[in-house]
Amino acid sequence: MAASFHEFDLIHWIREQCPASQAELIGIGDDTAILQPPANHELLLATDMLMEGTHFTFPPATPALAGRKALAVNLSDIAAMAGVPHSALVSLALPRSRGPEFTRSVMQGIIDLSEEFQMQIIGGDTNSWDGPLVINVAIIGTALQSKSIKRSGATAGDWIFMTGECGGSLASHHLMFTPRVKEAATLCKTVTIKSMIDISDGLASDLLHILEESGVGAVLDAAAIPISDDVPVNESEAARLQHALSDGEDFELLFTVSPAEGKRLLKEKPLNINLTHLGEITPEQGAFLRHADGSLSPIESTGWKHQL
Amino acid sequence: MAASFHEFDLIHWIREQCPASQAELIGIGDDTAILQPPANHELLLATDMLMEGTHFTFPPATPALAGRKALAVNLSDIAAMAGVPHSALVSLALPRSRGPEFTRSVMQGIIDLSEEFQMQIIGGDTNSWDGPLVINVAIIGTALQSKSIKRSGATAGDWIFMTGECGGSLASHHLMFTPRVKEAATLCKTVTIKSMIDISDGLASDLLHILEESGVGAVLDAAAIPISDDVPVNESEAARLQHALSDGEDFELLFTVSPAEGKRLLKEKPLNINLTHLGEITPEQGAFLRHADGSLSPIESTGWKHQL
Repeated sequence: MAASFHEFDLIHWIREQCPASQAELIGIGDDTAILQPPANHELLLATDMLMEGTHFTFPPATPALAGRKALAVNLSDIAAMAGVPHSALVSLALPRSRGPEFTRSVMQGIIDLSEEFQMQIIGGDTNSWDGPLVINVAIIGTALQSKSIKRSGATAGDWIFMTGECGGSLASHHLMFTPRVKEAATLCKTVTIKSMIDISDGLASDLLHILEESGVGAVLDAAAIPISDDVPVNESEAARLQHALSDGEDFELLFTVSPAEGKRLLKEKPLNINLTHLGEITPEQGAFLRHADGSLSPIESTGWKHQL
Repeated sequence: MAASFHEFDLIHWIREQCPASQAELIGIGDDTAILQPPANHELLLATDMLMEGTHFTFPPATPALAGRKALAVNLSDIAAMAGVPHSALVSLALPRSRGPEFTRSVMQGIIDLSEEFQMQIIGGDTNSWDGPLVINVAIIGTALQSKSIKRSGATAGDWIFMTGECGGSLASHHLMFTPRVKEAATLCKTVTIKSMIDISDGLASDLLHILEESGVGAVLDAAAIPISDDVPVNESEAARLQHALSDGEDFELLFTVSPAEGKRLLKEKPLNINLTHLGEITPEQGAFLRHADGSLSPIESTGWKHQL
């Protein structure tokens, strides 16, 4: 029997790896997981699918890093709502040729990150095929009632901030980033965040998502944009800025606060990572970069888009 | 721009197709969906991934039937818990070559079935690649508190029942089946169901899942097993029985009740579809078929298993 390893063996192994279910929860081992929703909380639900060759390749990714990324991008969505991750469902399409060790490594990458964020894997679906690895995670988070932060809350005059740096994520950051769950919680305790999104499509695209949902515009200071060290230094300033605006998969937080709260953030510096004041929300729709000479150029949605 | 159709166009189109969000729910258009959990209910969560070439092929599947199946298999999991479907998240890996009409048809198949079951698509993830179609659905259902029905509740003496027929699903049933959500609700109102599962892996495998989780055994009457008309009539009786036990993807309900409740079910016939008394739960572990001459043969887990 040593050569045979099938989905029920994997499910059995996953059940062994995952900590015992909490009292309010029945995890892996039935047709569905059962969740007793915590009182006075909203539930946050999101899903992301990662495909080998599109969202990661082997190498530089390892099976564990691919699994890690699949959960991390979902954690980033929970962070963008200032939520607390609770649990996740994991679906796998596994390349038959790669064997059980590959499969266990993918799951181990997911399980290790889930433990780091004190959440549980409560179910999933396991398949094998002749295609490349596909991982889907559906995540469940919680937020205090009416405390989750949407893209639609920005108003004219708001200051625009981002955590960390952007650009050049393809080098390695997209496989190794820390979802900003704790930073979002700290920001929420410090100030009233009016709108927030995580930077997955790219700073330009994700800013435009906030503007569209809020019905406002924005001006960003070009010089303020924190360009990551991962963006090649031998490129022109314009090219480096374009990387920062467009590369995507930075998984930093982009958010707006009132000017008074913005000043307090700059003074109190509540995070252990960079926090940058990028610009302001304007009443007129449209997004612009303000250059050193005072001129404005339009910000276009140049991030990654899946052509269908 | 007519030739360009990308993920944001699709998301815009999906938002137009999906009915306005209910008051307690923010749907598509933020980093996560927000759900105000209904009071005194448990939440049921499940996920299933379908891959082109494994779970469906074109033809006989159409894009709309592939989408329909992806939601239907998840609805079947909610039925198996006697739950009420509430909402779903849909992830797509779309073959780039097939164009926007293909994509809209897949989503239309999902949306049409969601409307039939009065549930909402509240979010998802859209990707394109050079691979085949992959659809992942994560479903959210509700059950009255402590009323969801698990695999683990079978006890010795229980009568074993199934809805409908089994075997031969590959002919067309696996693409067209009706998830037994309404039937599960009716059964629940009529009797106390002690354990339940939907038949996805095959009657034999799924019976063994109930037995394993409940720590009991079973004897089924071979002659009682309702073989579907989709099983070829020109095969031997033994081969036809094997199809019924092993083919899988029947998506009927397999459940156990007390003998008194079982008698009441046979008398009251509460469903519009067949309801068959297959056999009994035994205190000793192990599953057996009882043949016409009274002899017993072991039931083995011969259904579909993904080899990893």
